[in-house]
Amino acid sequence: MAIALASNARGSARSLGTSPAAAPAVTSVLVDFVCSLDSSEVPANVRKEAVRTFLNWIGCAIGGSTHSTLDIAISALRPFFGREQAQVLGRNLRSDIFNAAMLNGMSSHVLDYDDTHLKTIIHPAGPVASALLALAEHRPVTGSEFVTALVLGIEVECRIGNAVYPDHYERGWHITGTCGTFGAAAACGRLLNLTTESMAAAFGIAASQPVGLKIQFGTMTKCLHPGRAAHNGLTAAMLAASGYTAASNCLEGINGWGQAVSTRQDWSQALAALGHQYESSLNTYKPFACGIVIHPAIDAGIRLREAHTIAPENIKEIVLKANPLVKSLTGNPSPTTGLESKFSVHHAVAAAIVQGDGGPQQFSDAAVAEPSIAALRQRVTLIVDGSIPPEKCELTIQMATGQKLSVYVEDAIGSIANPMSDEALAEKCHRLSDDVVGRARTAKLIELCWGIESMADVKELVIATVPGED
Amino acid sequence: MAIALASNARGSARSLGTSPAAAPAVTSVLVDFVCSLDSSEVPANVRKEAVRTFLNWIGCAIGGSTHSTLDIAISALRPFFGREQAQVLGRNLRSDIFNAAMLNGMSSHVLDYDDTHLKTIIHPAGPVASALLALAEHRPVTGSEFVTALVLGIEVECRIGNAVYPDHYERGWHITGTCGTFGAAAACGRLLNLTTESMAAAFGIAASQPVGLKIQFGTMTKCLHPGRAAHNGLTAAMLAASGYTAASNCLEGINGWGQAVSTRQDWSQALAALGHQYESSLNTYKPFACGIVIHPAIDAGIRLREAHTIAPENIKEIVLKANPLVKSLTGNPSPTTGLESKFSVHHAVAAAIVQGDGGPQQFSDAAVAEPSIAALRQRVTLIVDGSIPPEKCELTIQMATGQKLSVYVEDAIGSIANPMSDEALAEKCHRLSDDVVGRARTAKLIELCWGIESMADVKELVIATVPGED
Repeated sequence: MAIALASNARGSARSLGTSPAAAPAVTSVLVDFVCSLDSSEVPANVRKEAVRTFLNWIGCAIGGSTHSTLDIAISALRPFFGREQAQVLGRNLRSDIFNAAMLNGMSSHVLDYDDTHLKTIIHPAGPVASALLALAEHRPVTGSEFVTALVLGIEVECRIGNAVYPDHYERGWHITGTCGTFGAAAACGRLLNLTTESMAAAFGIAASQPVGLKIQFGTMTKCLHPGRAAHNGLTAAMLAASGYTAASNCLEGINGWGQAVSTRQDWSQALAALGHQYESSLNTYKPFACGIVIHPAIDAGIRLREAHTIAPENIKEIVLKANPLVKSLTGNPSPTTGLESKFSVHHAVAAAIVQGDGGPQQFSDAAVAEPSIAALRQRVTLIVDGSIPPEKCELTIQMATGQKLSVYVEDAIGSIANPMSDEALAEKCHRLSDDVVGRARTAKLIELCWGIESMADVKELVIATVPGED
Repeated sequence: MAIALASNARGSARSLGTSPAAAPAVTSVLVDFVCSLDSSEVPANVRKEAVRTFLNWIGCAIGGSTHSTLDIAISALRPFFGREQAQVLGRNLRSDIFNAAMLNGMSSHVLDYDDTHLKTIIHPAGPVASALLALAEHRPVTGSEFVTALVLGIEVECRIGNAVYPDHYERGWHITGTCGTFGAAAACGRLLNLTTESMAAAFGIAASQPVGLKIQFGTMTKCLHPGRAAHNGLTAAMLAASGYTAASNCLEGINGWGQAVSTRQDWSQALAALGHQYESSLNTYKPFACGIVIHPAIDAGIRLREAHTIAPENIKEIVLKANPLVKSLTGNPSPTTGLESKFSVHHAVAAAIVQGDGGPQQFSDAAVAEPSIAALRQRVTLIVDGSIPPEKCELTIQMATGQKLSVYVEDAIGSIANPMSDEALAEKCHRLSDDVVGRARTAKLIELCWGIESMADVKELVIATVPGED
């Protein structure tokens, strides 16, 4: 699809107060793209990455479905569920499509184990795939159409993120929930075959409902953000499909979204190489169940543990040199719950050295209370260094004997330069899903996901997301 | 209730980047107030104003319930309704409490005829009363407890608004939806008898879900804002009641709500004279069905029409001198729909002079298309003057004969200094509701509202909000 951008992309960074006449018509360009792109125009590698994204998302959603956060949310909301239209993944429970979208978005994020668009720290699949699969159960869709809608939703979400990151994120917004609402609306609108006019309304309705503040990190409300974004985006698409109206220039217009949520927008970043370069192809998947900026440090801890015989009680001090984001996002040295520990690099490094892993178990309430981990995390010293990029770190273990063990991680496992393989993603899905729906069903689910492009009706894979015997 | 504020209110205006340690613990002070205030401590005049607020709200919700905006929203959402737990006002339709809260919030605002807290331009009742009445149908509550919860919800909503207005509003946020989410959460949390810990979580969950952008004015999405705020606030309270966790300092904390939605917060404005002075007692009610800043101009037009015999076709020019807000919010000289005309001072003045009123009929699609009004609104000249406060204006009609008619409106009808009487509020309710539920039922509803303080169970008044014979 040839997109004429030259005349639209003339705007660049601008702040509140400059003339919005200089802003490109970013809403309508994105809307046109979502409505008019033909499935056949999406390159095969982009479609393949979307399938990997979907598999990773569904595994995370099933694995997170047994978390106490979901128990509480379901007990609160179940009395108000509508008809049994869509599956609450990992549970013998169905609900109306809105509640299913929300709960699946929550469970996919509650373990902090999902996917990451590293340029913006958006976790793309939670809002988009959660809304899309719930809608796909209500309105039949082929696997091919589903994958195209997923690509487009992630594209919209991440490109809007590109335009406002980092200012928007630094102001306190949890960018996954704020941009995710647009992604969910776009993807669902695509599935509903909205006209450009209705799609613009869906964007507009979504714009009025941003979700998510960073102050919630370490609490149950963090995972509500992608869940509610899915709910809001799906609501926007359904209202627009019925003729509900909204502003048609919600992103760049005066008193619109960009101006409200950020003091700086660079809309050219939202439109650059649209249709030629896909943000969804830059998605990455977490090998560890915690904040992404901690990953290099865990990788380092595991590498040192595998290279040496380390008795944790003989460690005098652990010194981590890392990017400043590691401290600002995960600098809590004394977490008290599993959810808090996902934002404690001190805990993560200690758990990696003691247990050799960074999975959901290492970020459980039990792991936080484990005496050997608790003792070791008090001996972690964090030194921030702006010259170290977020995907790298240096870890040094000072033994009581005087021995010094050190490693520099260049590209942490799971980063763009060192991605998880298909096999590793499948293994991660087993690790998340086997205990919930059973090993045979998980194997079936993985097989269905890899073959999603040829499915006649996507909802046929839902049976493999529910606990049961085969 | 004695509130010790001295030690908490030491913060004042601050911007992102200054130390949040200087901010007062505004979240916990408001939370404590909502949880601990005894009903008997709310002064009688405050309670009476809340009852007036409730009557005005329910009339607006019934009157707006037949608007095409609601037809569209209901057609989109009805397939996903839960059990019939709460009334969709003005319709023979029941739904789960969340959808009822949302739809009633929408219908109460769609005519732009509801209440206004003039200090912040918040329309307080839409988010709060809509959530509260839906919850009251699910969980029995006395009229007295209901009124106390309504007072507290409005108090929280308007006080948070005081802290961020005007910067927050100027950035593009529709403050009714953003602050309203807190009001709905606080009021519902009070009805649910939340502990201070859970109430803080309810505030936190609400903080992550602000709703509303000013760019939507003139579209159907404007009224979605109080509706969705009711939905979000009720959701926050229900989740918190089940033990869902969130940050306990969501307003003032680093990466919290205040920092995200505004570049300037003065939290002392949220806490000043808390428990001694009630923002809810400052509520006002619209005599005209349009943006509040237009009201003085309509009042002026009606006064000139009543004082003189004016043939509209003989008018050469109409000159309105008014506050700059009148232009920035309602400066559209050529509206094309009824919803757009609510933000056209040109249309409003023309309609007032031609038809002598500013009710829902003057802001309908039909009124916009009416040739005499359409011709006259082209002859309206708007001159902004910063020395004229928003509640005043000067209107001059220049006749073709050379005659000049002029009036200066000091305090428009409906302003704090010139409030609508109880009788005028009842008459407004009849005007809104008679055609929807019948005149006898409306009279019964008004009687029940005036007596709400002595009701054993508030849901008994719901029957009078439904179309039917008596």
